[in-house]
Amino acid sequence: MEQTDGQKRVINLVDAFCDEHFDEPSIKQWCRSRGLPTRVYDAFYASDLAGYVLPRSVGGNDCPFLDRVTLIMAMVRRAGASLPFQSDMTALALLSSMRQVSQDEIVEDLYSHTGRVLFSQAFTEPNAGTDTQAVRTQVTSEADGIYLDGEKTYVSSGEFADNTLVLARDPMFGQMDGGMSLWLVPVRSEGVSTMPLNTIGQDMLASASLTFDHVKLNPEWQIQTEGKLNAMMKRQFGLGRVLVCASSAGLALAALDDAVVHAAEHTVKGRQLVSLPQIQEKLADMESRVRTILALTFQAARSADRDSRDFDLDTALAKRTVPSLAVQVASDALQVFGGIGYTDQTRVSRIWQDCRGNQIAWGTDEVMARVVAKAIVRKAGTRRW
Amino acid sequence: MEQTDGQKRVINLVDAFCDEHFDEPSIKQWCRSRGLPTRVYDAFYASDLAGYVLPRSVGGNDCPFLDRVTLIMAMVRRAGASLPFQSDMTALALLSSMRQVSQDEIVEDLYSHTGRVLFSQAFTEPNAGTDTQAVRTQVTSEADGIYLDGEKTYVSSGEFADNTLVLARDPMFGQMDGGMSLWLVPVRSEGVSTMPLNTIGQDMLASASLTFDHVKLNPEWQIQTEGKLNAMMKRQFGLGRVLVCASSAGLALAALDDAVVHAAEHTVKGRQLVSLPQIQEKLADMESRVRTILALTFQAARSADRDSRDFDLDTALAKRTVPSLAVQVASDALQVFGGIGYTDQTRVSRIWQDCRGNQIAWGTDEVMARVVAKAIVRKAGTRRW
Amino acid sequence: MEQTDGQKRVINLVDAFCDEHFDEPSIKQWCRSRGLPTRVYDAFYASDLAGYVLPRSVGGNDCPFLDRVTLIMAMVRRAGASLPFQSDMTALALLSSMRQVSQDEIVEDLYSHTGRVLFSQAFTEPNAGTDTQAVRTQVTSEADGIYLDGEKTYVSSGEFADNTLVLARDPMFGQMDGGMSLWLVPVRSEGVSTMPLNTIGQDMLASASLTFDHVKLNPEWQIQTEGKLNAMMKRQFGLGRVLVCASSAGLALAALDDAVVHAAEHTVKGRQLVSLPQIQEKLADMESRVRTILALTFQAARSADRDSRDFDLDTALAKRTVPSLAVQVASDALQVFGGIGYTDQTRVSRIWQDCRGNQIAWGTDEVMARVVAKAIVRKAGTRRW
Amino acid sequence: MEQTDGQKRVINLVDAFCDEHFDEPSIKQWCRSRGLPTRVYDAFYASDLAGYVLPRSVGGNDCPFLDRVTLIMAMVRRAGASLPFQSDMTALALLSSMRQVSQDEIVEDLYSHTGRVLFSQAFTEPNAGTDTQAVRTQVTSEADGIYLDGEKTYVSSGEFADNTLVLARDPMFGQMDGGMSLWLVPVRSEGVSTMPLNTIGQDMLASASLTFDHVKLNPEWQIQTEGKLNAMMKRQFGLGRVLVCASSAGLALAALDDAVVHAAEHTVKGRQLVSLPQIQEKLADMESRVRTILALTFQAARSADRDSRDFDLDTALAKRTVPSLAVQVASDALQVFGGIGYTDQTRVSRIWQDCRGNQIAWGTDEVMARVVAKAIVRKAGTRRW
Ligand SMILES: Cc1cc2nc3c(=O)[nH]c(=O)nc-3n(C[C@H](O)[C@H](O)[C@H](O)COP(=O)(O)OP(=O)(O)OC[C@H]3O[C@@H](n4cnc5c(N)ncnc54)[C@H](O)[C@@H]3O)c2cc1C
Ligand SMILES: Cc1cc2nc3c(=O)[nH]c(=O)nc-3n(C[C@H](O)[C@H](O)[C@H](O)COP(=O)(O)OP(=O)(O)OC[C@H]3O[C@@H](n4cnc5c(N)ncnc54)[C@H](O)[C@@H]3O)c2cc1C
Ligand SMILES: Cc1cc2nc3c(=O)[nH]c(=O)nc-3n(C[C@H](O)[C@H](O)[C@H](O)COP(=O)(O)OP(=O)(O)OC[C@H]3O[C@@H](n4cnc5c(N)ncnc54)[C@H](O)[C@@H]3O)c2cc1C
Ligand SMILES: Cc1cc2nc3c(=O)[nH]c(=O)nc-3n(C[C@H](O)[C@H](O)[C@H](O)COP(=O)(O)OP(=O)(O)OC[C@H]3O[C@@H](n4cnc5c(N)ncnc54)[C@H](O)[C@@H]3O)c2cc1C
Repeated sequence: MEQTDGQKRVINLVDAFCDEHFDEPSIKQWCRSRGLPTRVYDAFYASDLAGYVLPRSVGGNDCPFLDRVTLIMAMVRRAGASLPFQSDMTALALLSSMRQVSQDEIVEDLYSHTGRVLFSQAFTEPNAGTDTQAVRTQVTSEADGIYLDGEKTYVSSGEFADNTLVLARDPMFGQMDGGMSLWLVPVRSEGVSTMPLNTIGQDMLASASLTFDHVKLNPEWQIQTEGKLNAMMKRQFGLGRVLVCASSAGLALAALDDAVVHAAEHTVKGRQLVSLPQIQEKLADMESRVRTILALTFQAARSADRDSRDFDLDTALAKRTVPSLAVQVASDALQVFGGIGYTDQTRVSRIWQDCRGNQIAWGTDEVMARVVAKAIVRKAGTRRW
Repeated sequence: MEQTDGQKRVINLVDAFCDEHFDEPSIKQWCRSRGLPTRVYDAFYASDLAGYVLPRSVGGNDCPFLDRVTLIMAMVRRAGASLPFQSDMTALALLSSMRQVSQDEIVEDLYSHTGRVLFSQAFTEPNAGTDTQAVRTQVTSEADGIYLDGEKTYVSSGEFADNTLVLARDPMFGQMDGGMSLWLVPVRSEGVSTMPLNTIGQDMLASASLTFDHVKLNPEWQIQTEGKLNAMMKRQFGLGRVLVCASSAGLALAALDDAVVHAAEHTVKGRQLVSLPQIQEKLADMESRVRTILALTFQAARSADRDSRDFDLDTALAKRTVPSLAVQVASDALQVFGGIGYTDQTRVSRIWQDCRGNQIAWGTDEVMARVVAKAIVRKAGTRRW
Repeated sequence: MEQTDGQKRVINLVDAFCDEHFDEPSIKQWCRSRGLPTRVYDAFYASDLAGYVLPRSVGGNDCPFLDRVTLIMAMVRRAGASLPFQSDMTALALLSSMRQVSQDEIVEDLYSHTGRVLFSQAFTEPNAGTDTQAVRTQVTSEADGIYLDGEKTYVSSGEFADNTLVLARDPMFGQMDGGMSLWLVPVRSEGVSTMPLNTIGQDMLASASLTFDHVKLNPEWQIQTEGKLNAMMKRQFGLGRVLVCASSAGLALAALDDAVVHAAEHTVKGRQLVSLPQIQEKLADMESRVRTILALTFQAARSADRDSRDFDLDTALAKRTVPSLAVQVASDALQVFGGIGYTDQTRVSRIWQDCRGNQIAWGTDEVMARVVAKAIVRKAGTRRW
Repeated sequence: MEQTDGQKRVINLVDAFCDEHFDEPSIKQWCRSRGLPTRVYDAFYASDLAGYVLPRSVGGNDCPFLDRVTLIMAMVRRAGASLPFQSDMTALALLSSMRQVSQDEIVEDLYSHTGRVLFSQAFTEPNAGTDTQAVRTQVTSEADGIYLDGEKTYVSSGEFADNTLVLARDPMFGQMDGGMSLWLVPVRSEGVSTMPLNTIGQDMLASASLTFDHVKLNPEWQIQTEGKLNAMMKRQFGLGRVLVCASSAGLALAALDDAVVHAAEHTVKGRQLVSLPQIQEKLADMESRVRTILALTFQAARSADRDSRDFDLDTALAKRTVPSLAVQVASDALQVFGGIGYTDQTRVSRIWQDCRGNQIAWGTDEVMARVVAKAIVRKAGTRRW
């Protein structure tokens, strides 16, 4: 797999950034404190990398989605840990499917305050994950205004993002959209409370549950969906899936990087690990899984860039396959390390834990099968490969 | 698989004990503080269960190893977490392969102080895991006494056990045993220091690294091996492996228990999870893996009880197979829960993490293959099944 | 896993029989000619083994189903090929769930002619496999008698069994049984035609399609089901599944037997295959899969013997798991042989092909999941393991 | 994965050719008679496709190896069976690594007789497969000439190729090449005898064993290797592996093609197969495996075209991974068909059998791991992905 020029460029930028800002003790510390320090965020948004995450109106560049995906992958690989930039990127992806005007308003507003456009995305509820139709969070209109009530959970970056995008049942504003609407709610509004969620990995993503207790909504916070909510959400989930895959790809690459070094350096009974056939099999299988991961992830990203009819197929297939392959790669890497691989003295232990969450985030392995199968059958007659 | 009367008895005792002493918030707390509270230990040693862990000379009963294995399994199942009793049991197993007289001395000594016979087992070193021949911890004889120097790691219960059994290079006392000897060293001796090891699971086992910096040894601490060290260690590792499998079996059972309840109670789009074919496949596969786990673990335990010629084969085969199956069961259970399965609000997340360590502890999956294959070929002509 | 005395006895009988009648060139020849020669059948029915396959009324013994299962397993193991005795055994199983009187009549009738009670079982149709409700074969009553029309397929032993048991739609005689009835039709009746089916394995089972073109039925051929057809079929399918597993178990054991011998005898670059770690892993995994196969198959057989409430669970779980494990064992064995394993100069090639069919016969892997999951949830509260 | 223009061209040619010459009854017949009829060969060599298989000196074109690989893949996909053109292509590959002058001589000679350049390749012996050093076939020099004695086996196209390339131990001519030499021997020479080998698939490849009983060698038959035999063989094995992968890729694509059609058309209990979640999972997993197969195969082909330093890595990795994935795809497809998938009434049964051989041909799955692992470690510092 050749790198495109765009990919080479972004990887070089990432490497430069990480050389300066990342080292393993810091990463470990940031995981423990569940988030990147502001200083690192600021450095990121002051660097050339910002252009990949910001909308054009505030200085973003016009690169293909493939490059953004590559950014996440390359950066996660260097960190050996899931990074919150993934949330920024999905926020950006969402913006890009909005009408230009609402986009600009939001961006301006968000950007002017923090120099970032990050907002978390609060779709899932305790009883509405796979089934978004079961959402109970509710917009109601009362004499003195509009109110939001409900509970959201597993919200990535939910602990620290200043704003959160809420999907709610809304009989009034959601009429053209099946009774649903989207609101970008400042987390510091009265009535919003945040509860950290102890996930068993992806610590820097700082998942949280958010409760909305009669939160008074400013009408300007509503996203203008105008009957296109479903399409927007579908696109958004597609892009979100590819970004999750990018993160899994970065984690898998990091695991392989570390395992290769260890296998070359460590000896047992006087023999390099890499000379042991069982370790050789692991390395070979890791390599072929990593290549599969990259192939599927990039194919999905390109499908987004080309607005391909296979967008659903390619993104769902990647989402179904990549995270689970990444877990296997991470588990093999952990095993190559032996006892130390099961401690926090290696990155592979964290990587293995981080990887696991991606089999669930943004649509589970199981629910993807349906999307894929339907698309395959649909294109049966016309497929070239 | 029918339960023997002995198994039924021990399971009933375990259930009674756990009804009184275990509940999920406590377990969670004990994991966080890395160990069972003394109160629970004391209750255990005051109960009828103590007989299964104590040597006969201080009130232990004479039950088959199968019952001890069942105890660990049943208790871990109830806790949904690895428990330190596993260390007590392996200590007991070790005692049972010593000469009666040294056994009695040790027991008396240990038991009189704490009412327990627990000691941790310090075999592995940073560069000597699979390869015990590479052990560098060293006994030296000087004018004023005998001294121990070296570093041990991944020592289960190493953080809190009062004594630790150290395998060391010893040109003097180890002459009949290939230059190796075993010492039961009080952890509070001068020169011993303990460093907690952050494993990514099995928190209650409280792994630690131990450093021995010119520790003066009392000759009475030496275990009389008299040319039998190798045989003792082999037996000990065999029994230790079965106990690790028992722990994995308990974890897998707990994961299945929880998944079944969730699949029956939770609905998505108005349908019970258990009515979804993909969830059905998971449950079916979990069930057949759990049965395999039990069959292999019990077969290995019975092999120990019968002093079978297949002891090596049965214990190594169980060790190779059971922990990795348990990880799969746990991972499936986690997936059945969806997002919440990736948080500490469910037991399955912890179980998944705990399970993983057992693919490494007491001999990795990889190194078991050799033992198994050799034994299979050896018995080729005579096998009945 | 210990053998019961009954199992030992039957295995000894099988060994004696096979020593006399089986050798690889003959087996190969019988596969090519798609069936055992009459001489071997006659020898079988003249031996003490007959008692395990015949009903008591004509000299059969009263052994547990476990022993019958063991017979099939042991014999298939010796042959390294699927054997048609499996059909005899399923026929017997079916008889055993009939009323005593119809049983005796059938048996007497069949046995007096051939000394056997074999009949093939024609349930499946080109468009009614998993879905037995879709059966189109039809019984109609006309002025001059009752007629049968339809087509059955994948009928094991269909090529040579003198009689076949037909499941048909029958508005008249099937009233108490949901409009279905069972007929034991002599294959030489006018209007019956048989077409060999080229399966890619299990050649001695001689699968066939049967067409019934206005076959005049003798009312005595009808099996008296009296509202119990469903229950009978359910029991029958349960037992049939265990027998398929027995066959898979025998095949897997044979594959392991051969692989172990080859791994011990064959050398590459001067090293015994068994000393190569990758071959060791294969042998170890084969061994643990074979143990799983035996454990699940025997557990299901015992469940039948005890009339356990877990009959459905145990038989469906075995059926789901055992054949697919057997394919893996066979494939590993084939691989151990290298190039020659892909030719008919080894048994493993045939075994691999034979094994595959059992993932489909008597209910596919897929449809079993449902039965298992429902049963697991049902017993959730009461399970001991 | 986009098709290159070259790939599009070759696929169109293949489609046109197959539209005219392939249909399933013929393919089945050709498998039964173990070979393509001469008429089809002639048509192939009269078509534009010939250019992809012939050397330039006799009209071949100068396309990249990727296109040749695509030819095999596309043609095997249409046939749903392994095709002997694979042998022609590997013969061509071998030629291309010879000195120009010997190449031209051979080509002229072969081509002038048959219009083809096909020769089979006889490297493996009953006791020398993985271990080519163990070759025992021997060249000896006697008073009246040079003689060849020995036995070769698993020779693809060995039954009908007019010439065979023999690797032999040769103390005289092989001095510069570690005592080995290569001879292109006409199969009709006195002393050569051919024995068909009953493989359990790949019937059209017509494997054979060849015996050389004091065959008098014409010195012109010797291939001039001049100290480059090892390098030639290494390159040849690399290319041969990719061609085996191309064949597996074609088989996997054919299996998926058929499964998709069946899943869309066939119903069980009134539901299309494709609407059943377990079938959906199979289709999704087949799709992602097919994509992996294509990615790895094409990457290896491109590596050959670019003379990349990763040639060994890429070809060995493809060879290790692709054939085994193809078996899984084929097995899933077979399962989707149910009972009929286990008969010769579907292509998937044959495809499944054909696929299996490729896990052994041209170097087993096992031996590839070593090549891959060493290459991964070697490039550790420099890898971009
Ligand atoms: C690391 C992580 C990050 C996340 N980030 C966010 C975020 O930023 N914002 C946000 O809104 N949400 C987020 N989520 C939530 C995530 O989207 C949901 O957890 C996921 O969609 C599954 O929903 P659930 O947890 O309700 O599980 P359920 O829907 O209850 O699923 C339980 C199980 O049933 C299976 N299942 C469900 N339906 C079917 C079906 N029809 N057929 C077969 N199987 C089925 C599932 O596969 C799963 O195994 C995150 C989750 C994780 C783990
Ligand atoms: C949860 C846990 C609890 C433990 N408890 C204890 C304890 O109480 N006391 C104690 O002394 N130790 C304990 N250990 C340590 C444990 O026994 C070692 O970690 C284990 O034996 C592996 O040794 P290692 O870590 O040095 O890995 P290494 O030996 O360095 O192995 C690294 C990798 O190489 C592989 N490998 C090594 N040799 C070969 C070979 N010949 N062929 C193929 N592959 C090979 C291994 O499988 C592994 O994948 C524990 C470990 C864990 C994880
Ligand atoms: C070796 C062999 C021996 C046999 N012997 C006999 C015999 O002696 N007598 C006899 O009557 N029959 C026999 N059969 C037939 C066998 O019982 C059927 O082939 C089997 O039940 C499957 O039915 P089918 O072939 O119609 O496949 P289908 O029912 O068409 O199934 C096709 C695919 O769909 C899947 N599928 C179907 N329904 C579901 C569902 N609800 N959910 C998920 N997946 C589903 C299946 O698992 C399969 O993968 C034999 C078959 C074989 C292979
Ligand atoms: C379909 C097919 C087509 C073929 N076509 C040709 C052809 O045209 N010309 C030709 O010359 N040959 C051909 N072969 C032969 C093929 O190259 C050999 O079968 C293959 O290289 C394996 O050699 P072997 O059969 O001697 O097995 P062995 O070398 O005896 O191997 C037996 C087993 O041991 C394993 N093994 C061997 N060495 C090691 C090791 N060091 N470490 C771990 N495992 C090891 C192997 O993986 C295998 O599982 C073909 C084979 C097949 C199946």
